[in-house]
Amino acid sequence: MTAAPRNLNMQGVLSMRGGGYYTERTQGAKLVINNALPLVKEGLKVDPKSEGVLRVADFGCADGGTSQEMWSNAFSYLRASGDKRQIAITYTDLASNDFSQLFRSMQGLAGDPSIAYQKNLEGVFVYGCGTGFHYQLFPEGTLDFGFSATAMHYLSEKPCEITTHCHSASAGEAEHAQFAAQAKADWERILLARARELKPGGRFVCLNFGIDEEGRYLGNTGGQHMFDIFDRLWARLRDAGKITKDEYDRATFVQYYRTQAEFAAPLLDETSAVHKAGLRLVDSFSTYTRCPYEQHFAEANGAMDPRTFAKTLIPTMRSWSETVFSSALSDRDPAEAAALVDEFFQSYEDLVAEAPAGHAMDYVHIVVVMEKVA
Amino acid sequence: MTAAPRNLNMQGVLSMRGGGYYTERTQGAKLVINNALPLVKEGLKVDPKSEGVLRVADFGCADGGTSQEMWSNAFSYLRASGDKRQIAITYTDLASNDFSQLFRSMQGLAGDPSIAYQKNLEGVFVYGCGTGFHYQLFPEGTLDFGFSATAMHYLSEKPCEITTHCHSASAGEAEHAQFAAQAKADWERILLARARELKPGGRFVCLNFGIDEEGRYLGNTGGQHMFDIFDRLWARLRDAGKITKDEYDRATFVQYYRTQAEFAAPLLDETSAVHKAGLRLVDSFSTYTRCPYEQHFAEANGAMDPRTFAKTLIPTMRSWSETVFSSALSDRDPAEAAALVDEFFQSYEDLVAEAPAGHAMDYVHIVVVMEKVA
Ligand SMILES: C[S@@+](CC[C@H](N)C(=O)[O-])C[C@H]1O[C@@H](n2cnc3c(N)ncnc32)[C@H](O)[C@@H]1O
Ligand SMILES: C[S@@+](CC[C@H](N)C(=O)[O-])C[C@H]1O[C@@H](n2cnc3c(N)ncnc32)[C@H](O)[C@@H]1O
Repeated sequence: MTAAPRNLNMQGVLSMRGGGYYTERTQGAKLVINNALPLVKEGLKVDPKSEGVLRVADFGCADGGTSQEMWSNAFSYLRASGDKRQIAITYTDLASNDFSQLFRSMQGLAGDPSIAYQKNLEGVFVYGCGTGFHYQLFPEGTLDFGFSATAMHYLSEKPCEITTHCHSASAGEAEHAQFAAQAKADWERILLARARELKPGGRFVCLNFGIDEEGRYLGNTGGQHMFDIFDRLWARLRDAGKITKDEYDRATFVQYYRTQAEFAAPLLDETSAVHKAGLRLVDSFSTYTRCPYEQHFAEANGAMDPRTFAKTLIPTMRSWSETVFSSALSDRDPAEAAALVDEFFQSYEDLVAEAPAGHAMDYVHIVVVMEKVA
Repeated sequence: MTAAPRNLNMQGVLSMRGGGYYTERTQGAKLVINNALPLVKEGLKVDPKSEGVLRVADFGCADGGTSQEMWSNAFSYLRASGDKRQIAITYTDLASNDFSQLFRSMQGLAGDPSIAYQKNLEGVFVYGCGTGFHYQLFPEGTLDFGFSATAMHYLSEKPCEITTHCHSASAGEAEHAQFAAQAKADWERILLARARELKPGGRFVCLNFGIDEEGRYLGNTGGQHMFDIFDRLWARLRDAGKITKDEYDRATFVQYYRTQAEFAAPLLDETSAVHKAGLRLVDSFSTYTRCPYEQHFAEANGAMDPRTFAKTLIPTMRSWSETVFSSALSDRDPAEAAALVDEFFQSYEDLVAEAPAGHAMDYVHIVVVMEKVA
């Protein structure tokens, strides 16, 4: 039996912009997911002799757009292999998520009809679930396969403000420790929930933002350091007296980038609740995905002007970071707050347009493949 | 296997207003659902010895508010009876539905916390499905119990405009026949889909607007005739030159109120596809639910002024009828269209305020209880 949602109201912690805004500006996220297709194909245990229902879930799906092509390919492969199982896919995210957009896309009422798999394939049923993934979302032992991309770096609560930076990866020791503890507790909760949901032998493939062997992470892969720039430009607004010290502090990403060791720990420790619940590590590795906007700019070889590049790069950053800055200004008149946030992202765009070298939002993921003991 | 959605884009046919607007103005709809609790309790086959997962669905749920108390009572009863089955409830509606509001209510993040059953009870999982109910929405034989209230009078397509009225119940013979044929085809499709979804022995309880033995139907129960008034006031705008003849015609409710015989036909006819698919009629009867706003006014015994009454009655009508009139004006500037629609409902309010006698929106339902052969 599950503990039903009691305290966590994630609405306060983050929100993404709806109406397809997320997907349009996240080519990189889509690439990362498409690259995971082989892991998904393997996890689905395709078999023409299988019968009944294949139940899968996409945890933290946003509007479903970034993973749609991958699922369409996976399910098409399954059908082409003669596997006739009915497929029930449940997309999960927070209650505030734009599920309408998602449902429309899968039915071919919006977006690219060639990947509208609910329409294009027989026997596929699509559902949404608006309860956070720290909770058990499916009855015991009923899930064949779980997938999650770029979502579980979000923490269930903000343990404290980060007073010297905006991101935990660059926080001072004491504040960092609080974020690390919250991330540890959250990850264990996530895994316990998945352990309960999965069928024996069922797999969970989780791609998460994290810190790789070389210490690299999102937007910090050797060139300009994205989060440092966020912090510097936000501090500049404070120093210019445009925002208060409190507003500066409150721009704290409720995120934590775990290392591979942190991801693996509860799966390897035989005394942990997760291990006892039967969840095992199958594989884990880091991936690096070059920023498609930076690559595009580089490949244009001078034929693209830096301003144009900046105008593609900043929106992809803005799609997921904007609400951190706007909610730091929540005590202000909305129009005033919006103007400040515009000014902030404009200053980042100007920076890139003036000197584009090294600016990018490269992705660093830790992939974790898990299996429930049979 | 199911036929996946192909042609029907219900978005064109209707839409309800979101953000909880529907539930707040629909006390009557809620009453009707609450009265169905005994049928639901029976359908859930409560048994302390049962194991596994109880899978139920609420078809055409809107924001889930009108049925929330009923489900909360049903599930609380089940738990109190020692039935420990995990409960998976899927709310279905069109893709455009406000599922976020629904998810929030069940988790106790919005609305009345005393009926937030996902939070208050153990082992309840809530999902949404944004595919229309003319399609199969669940894998074969996986649904224990289906429920639907006041939703299946909506047709999947508008067969023609009704040129002499706004509602099929008052249409001329030829136009009525086209609506009747569409309603027959839709009902058979709905039942075939449910027959496939239900487990052997599973029940489907469907409360629908319909026409009772005395010829009564929604808003036409002896006093003033609501749809005639809609039609008269809309025609008055045409006659005053404020809307065109085409706009008058296009205000056609894509609805059909079936008689008890029409509901029962495919279930009783042994040669029908529905009967062959194993769906059987268990019970059917009509119910009459007095308009709670009119009752409130009557019981106030002169202490409520007619204008106040009108201001409670018109919004309940407006909640589900507004889009019919506004979409008839879709070729106009939105502000202009909105002003005309306001004028239209204002004229209805004035009519009621001036002479309140006989005005009401009494509900007439045909309840149909069906079971899949074991
Ligand atoms: C960066 S987006 C990733 C979307 C998509 N999976 C992808 O890879 O492109 C992160 C998503 O995680 C969701 N999310 C964050 N915390 C969550 C939680 N506790 N439960 C469910 N979803 C959550 C957010 O709402 C958002 O849609
Ligand atoms: C009058 S409301 C009833 C809501 C709720 N069941 C109640 O009884 O209060 C009708 C609902 O049916 C939905 N509906 C209409 N056609 C539908 C279809 N083809 N598939 C799913 N839902 C549909 C509408 O979107 C709307 O939410």
